[in-house]
Amino acid sequence: MFKLYYYPNNASLAPHFLLHHLKADYELILVDKKANSQKSAEYLKLNPAGRIPTLVVDGQSIFESPAICMHICELHPQSGLMPVIGDPKRPLFFQWLAYLNNTLQAELMVRYYPQRHTNEESTIPNVVAAQDERIAEALSIINDQLKHNKYLLGNTLSACDYFLFMLAEWSLPIEKSPLTFKHLAAYLKRLCDNPTVKDVCEIEGMDLAPFKTYVQN
Amino acid sequence: MFKLYYYPNNASLAPHFLLHHLKADYELILVDKKANSQKSAEYLKLNPAGRIPTLVVDGQSIFESPAICMHICELHPQSGLMPVIGDPKRPLFFQWLAYLNNTLQAELMVRYYPQRHTNEESTIPNVVAAQDERIAEALSIINDQLKHNKYLLGNTLSACDYFLFMLAEWSLPIEKSPLTFKHLAAYLKRLCDNPTVKDVCEIEGMDLAPFKTYVQN
Repeated sequence: MFKLYYYPNNASLAPHFLLHHLKADYELILVDKKANSQKSAEYLKLNPAGRIPTLVVDGQSIFESPAICMHICELHPQSGLMPVIGDPKRPLFFQWLAYLNNTLQAELMVRYYPQRHTNEESTIPNVVAAQDERIAEALSIINDQLKHNKYLLGNTLSACDYFLFMLAEWSLPIEKSPLTFKHLAAYLKRLCDNPTVKDVCEIEGMDLAPFKTYVQN
Repeated sequence: MFKLYYYPNNASLAPHFLLHHLKADYELILVDKKANSQKSAEYLKLNPAGRIPTLVVDGQSIFESPAICMHICELHPQSGLMPVIGDPKRPLFFQWLAYLNNTLQAELMVRYYPQRHTNEESTIPNVVAAQDERIAEALSIINDQLKHNKYLLGNTLSACDYFLFMLAEWSLPIEKSPLTFKHLAAYLKRLCDNPTVKDVCEIEGMDLAPFKTYVQN
C-alpha cells in the first residue's frame, strides 16, 4: 500500500500518474498547501524539505518527486516504465529525468516563485522575464529530442514522459509555451489520449482542453 | 573504457570521484570552458544542453551529472556506492541525490550565474543576496541529516557523499558556508581524508586546506 501526500497539479502529479498507470494499491493524502501544511511540524517529520510530494511505502517515507518515481518503477520492474538494469535505454532514462528535474522544473520554480530569488520586490519582473527565456531554452532542447522519437526515450512510454507532461502543463502560461514547439506540441496532444493522463487529470481537477485545442501559427 | 568530458571543479567532479574510487579504466577529456567549448557544435552533438560533464561509455554518450553517477554505480553493483535494488537504502539514495541536484546545486547555479536569472544587470546583487539564504536553508537540512549519520545514507559511504562534497566545495565562498554547520563541517573534514577525495582534488588542482583549517565559532 502506497500513501502519496499530494496536492492537485503539484510535483505529486508525476508519481500519481505512475501509481494509477500501474493500478497500484494507493491512497492519496491531501496536503493543504493553501494552509501551508507542508511546513507543519507533523509533515516536516516525513519530509524535512517541507515540499510536496512525500511517498510512504513499507513504513518508509521518501521525498523528492524523481526519487519517488524511480522507486515506484523499481518496485514494478515488468511495467516498462523504467528500463531495467542492462537495458541501454536506462542511462538515458536517468539523463532525461535529471534534466527535466534539475533544469525545466528548477527554472519553472524560479519563474513561479520569483520572490524567493530576489530580496527586492520591485525586481521580480526582471527575474520573471529572464526565466521565460530559460524555460524556452529547455523546452527547445526537449522539442529537438522529440523530433525523431515518439516518446522521450524512443518508441516506448516511460515515467519520464509522465514527468514531462506534468512540467509541460505548468509551462502553459509561459509566453513561449510548450505548445509553440512543433514536436513537443504533437507529443503532448498524443499524451492527452493516454488513459492514465485522462483519468488522473480528471481526479486532480485539471483541464486538458488547452493541449487539444491549441493551433500553431 | 569510460571517457569523461570534464573541467576542473565542475559538475564532472562527482563522476570523477566515482571513476577514481572504482579504479575504473577511464580517460579525462578537458572541455575548455574558458573558450566556451561546451557550446561548440562538436560538443553539442554529445550533449545538447551544452554543459559539463558528458560520459561516453560503450559507444553511448550520457549527460547530467547525477545520471552519469547512477550509471557508473550500476555498472559496479558490488562497489556499495549505490544500494542495490531491494536494499531499503536505495530510495534514500535516489532521494538525497535528487535533493542535492535539484535544490543545493540548482540554487548554487543561480547564485554563481545570477545574470542568467534577471534581465537587468543592476538587480544582480538582489538575486545573489536571496540565493545566499536559499543555499543556507539547503545546507541546514543536510546538516540535520548528518546529525546522527556518519554519511548521508547512514554508516556507509555512497556516491551521494561524493556529490555532496563537490557541492560543499562550491559553497565555501558563501557567507554561511557549509563549514559554519557543525555536523556538516565534521563530515567534510572526515571526507578530506578519503583517499579518492585527496587524489582527485590533487589531479583537478583543488585545495583542501579550507576544509581542514576552519575553526567554528
